[in-house]
Amino acid sequence: MRIEILCTGDEILTGKTINTNHSHMARRFGEVGLTMHWGTTVGDDRESLVEAFRLAAKRADAVIVNGGLGPTVDDLSQEVAAQAAGVDLVLNEDWLARMEDFYTRRGRAMPSNNKKQAMLPAGSEFIDNPVGTACGFAITIDGARFFFTPGVPREMRRMIDDQVIPRLLKMSGLKVVTRLKRFHSFGVGESRADQMLDGIEKLVPDGTVKLGFQAHYPQLETKLAAQAASEEELDALLAPIEAGVRERLGNFIVAEDAQSLEGVVIDALVARGGTLATGEMYTGGAIAARFVPKEGAADPFLRGVVSRELSQMHDAVGLGAKAEGAGLNAETAMALASGLRTQSGASHALAVLIELDDGADRIEFGGTINVGIADEAGTIARTARMLGGRDWVRLGATELAIDCLRRRLQGLPVDERIDFEKR
Amino acid sequence: MRIEILCTGDEILTGKTINTNHSHMARRFGEVGLTMHWGTTVGDDRESLVEAFRLAAKRADAVIVNGGLGPTVDDLSQEVAAQAAGVDLVLNEDWLARMEDFYTRRGRAMPSNNKKQAMLPAGSEFIDNPVGTACGFAITIDGARFFFTPGVPREMRRMIDDQVIPRLLKMSGLKVVTRLKRFHSFGVGESRADQMLDGIEKLVPDGTVKLGFQAHYPQLETKLAAQAASEEELDALLAPIEAGVRERLGNFIVAEDAQSLEGVVIDALVARGGTLATGEMYTGGAIAARFVPKEGAADPFLRGVVSRELSQMHDAVGLGAKAEGAGLNAETAMALASGLRTQSGASHALAVLIELDDGADRIEFGGTINVGIADEAGTIARTARMLGGRDWVRLGATELAIDCLRRRLQGLPVDERIDFEKR
Repeated sequence: MRIEILCTGDEILTGKTINTNHSHMARRFGEVGLTMHWGTTVGDDRESLVEAFRLAAKRADAVIVNGGLGPTVDDLSQEVAAQAAGVDLVLNEDWLARMEDFYTRRGRAMPSNNKKQAMLPAGSEFIDNPVGTACGFAITIDGARFFFTPGVPREMRRMIDDQVIPRLLKMSGLKVVTRLKRFHSFGVGESRADQMLDGIEKLVPDGTVKLGFQAHYPQLETKLAAQAASEEELDALLAPIEAGVRERLGNFIVAEDAQSLEGVVIDALVARGGTLATGEMYTGGAIAARFVPKEGAADPFLRGVVSRELSQMHDAVGLGAKAEGAGLNAETAMALASGLRTQSGASHALAVLIELDDGADRIEFGGTINVGIADEAGTIARTARMLGGRDWVRLGATELAIDCLRRRLQGLPVDERIDFEKR
Repeated sequence: MRIEILCTGDEILTGKTINTNHSHMARRFGEVGLTMHWGTTVGDDRESLVEAFRLAAKRADAVIVNGGLGPTVDDLSQEVAAQAAGVDLVLNEDWLARMEDFYTRRGRAMPSNNKKQAMLPAGSEFIDNPVGTACGFAITIDGARFFFTPGVPREMRRMIDDQVIPRLLKMSGLKVVTRLKRFHSFGVGESRADQMLDGIEKLVPDGTVKLGFQAHYPQLETKLAAQAASEEELDALLAPIEAGVRERLGNFIVAEDAQSLEGVVIDALVARGGTLATGEMYTGGAIAARFVPKEGAADPFLRGVVSRELSQMHDAVGLGAKAEGAGLNAETAMALASGLRTQSGASHALAVLIELDDGADRIEFGGTINVGIADEAGTIARTARMLGGRDWVRLGATELAIDCLRRRLQGLPVDERIDFEKR
């Protein structure tokens, strides 16, 4: 089945807004086994829209139109859809009532131009939008099925997942229940992960689970996209392959699905009634910022210290006299972690020092990272050399430090070699 | 003149990579007065490319093709361009020699498949790429001028600015020298800035300077895109309008062009031999992270302290006993700044406290921000209430705090009302 995405709007065409809607929709389609064929972007311009609809209808079986469903005069999607399908616009009374209710409950009167959002092409299929005033609809134009979706990302995402993908899967004859299982890892590059998981799809019947990767340096996301006839089948299908991924990627998996590395660390601390203090040199506050709590989440973070001068670091953790002669090494990282723990009263302290190379920033530019952790059982250190330029080393050091703490909390070895370090 | 952007590549079509190249190119075109007409995205697929070239040639006067110039078999741009133009591919000896030299200087032998990158359609115009191995070229297909550019963003950006835009301006008959003047402000929303600058384009002849805005909350970028026959004319043209923007936006301008707010603060500190210490509560290290120095830049930042417990903050700045009874208010912010300054030995200290509303995160969720600054002249405070949800308040507090320090260093009032605060 040929699928095309047609994004409308001057903001997208002129580059004022980056088109993240195309990439989100296309990625979701790929994850459920649907294949993208073409993408088009046009402005809020009647002539271009008419031509874009005509061309897409000729090329594709299904066309997802995004944007142009708002209340203002430059929102033309319904009108051009009706014109292209050769039908009139008719009022959808139900949607008008829903919109009026939406405003009434917020103590406001609905502006009259919102009525336009309830005018749909005659004979079109209504598509619900539970989180906004732009409803979607589907209509057949020249043999292709067109799905109209709102440009607001939050509304689009919900509609694509809940309404559009099931319809596309039905059209394509693909099995209709889908699930996306995600593993977040640190320390394994995409090509090695690919090797480590080689052949894992063969644990299940052909084509039912698709393995994919998305690198967000320094983390790697490993995705299993599965399709089956029911949720129970999905469970049964995914169980062996999920277990396989966990076994093969092992200690490198830092979190799964909506979890984050820092969330896993926070949960592990909270579970044992622990608290945390951090000390950072060249990561400049990036580690502390990762522990800003989510709404309603527990907050075991007690104190963070940031400095690029070792004497300031020593002074800030109450080791003023001991700075003399200390170098940017594992011993100093352990001493700082220990001092920080004592001074803040935290159960766990994490200190990160980086000795950066001299000279101009470049791809071969590196740094030696020293991570020190102090807890009730003692102090440990981890040293790693990373390359890739200043920003790359800083990002890697932030992740390495937080991951060392995760490993310490989970009783795993903290010195397991990672792909990003050079020895 | 009708301009079309045609982005090629499976990564872009399937959403694995977000298409920032389209938005960058389109924005740059708009800034020099060129108008976008259409955007297309297709995969690394011969049939789709042929069809996309055919359609674009019919619609547009100029087509910018991005991607597909690499050395591998799925890079098809040169080949499909030659096919569409009805010519053969011929070896560009100069480019081959440049590539070989590029590898030799790095002590490596050029892989043989790179030779493909020097095969250009016969009769095409060579376009230089000084920063990569994918050269560009231009060729006329069915009456439209096609410009082929590399997919690597850094290479594409350079080629668009240095090579493609001058050619497009020449084609369009527009004046050929362009400049983009940028002002970064904090505290003024886009609609009020629009009002404040109303009519400012009338200071210069019609159509020669275009005013635009780009909001990156909490900052707003005000852009003047100018065209003239020469650099001297540009200087003369922009002088009155630049002066007008500086006068009207006044103290809200935090930086211009490639400068940043934190860069301006660092420069002001360094100019007076000053140093900085920071203390943060709910901004969680975001302020310290802004002062991570650029390569080769001076680094007056001495120490940062992060905590969400007031007692930890007090303890960390050496005011242990004074925490009792202290509230999240201006007095406490000043006391913390003062303690931080004494303890770190910095000439300037900045402390930021936020008292967040209770309850679930929502758009009306707010916080009261207290900024304290201590320097050789004494201590001052600034209090502001902001709404918009947790993340919004946190971003606003970070910017407000750094901007207060800028104002203090520049001798400007720190309590000028900003659009984002509620009183």
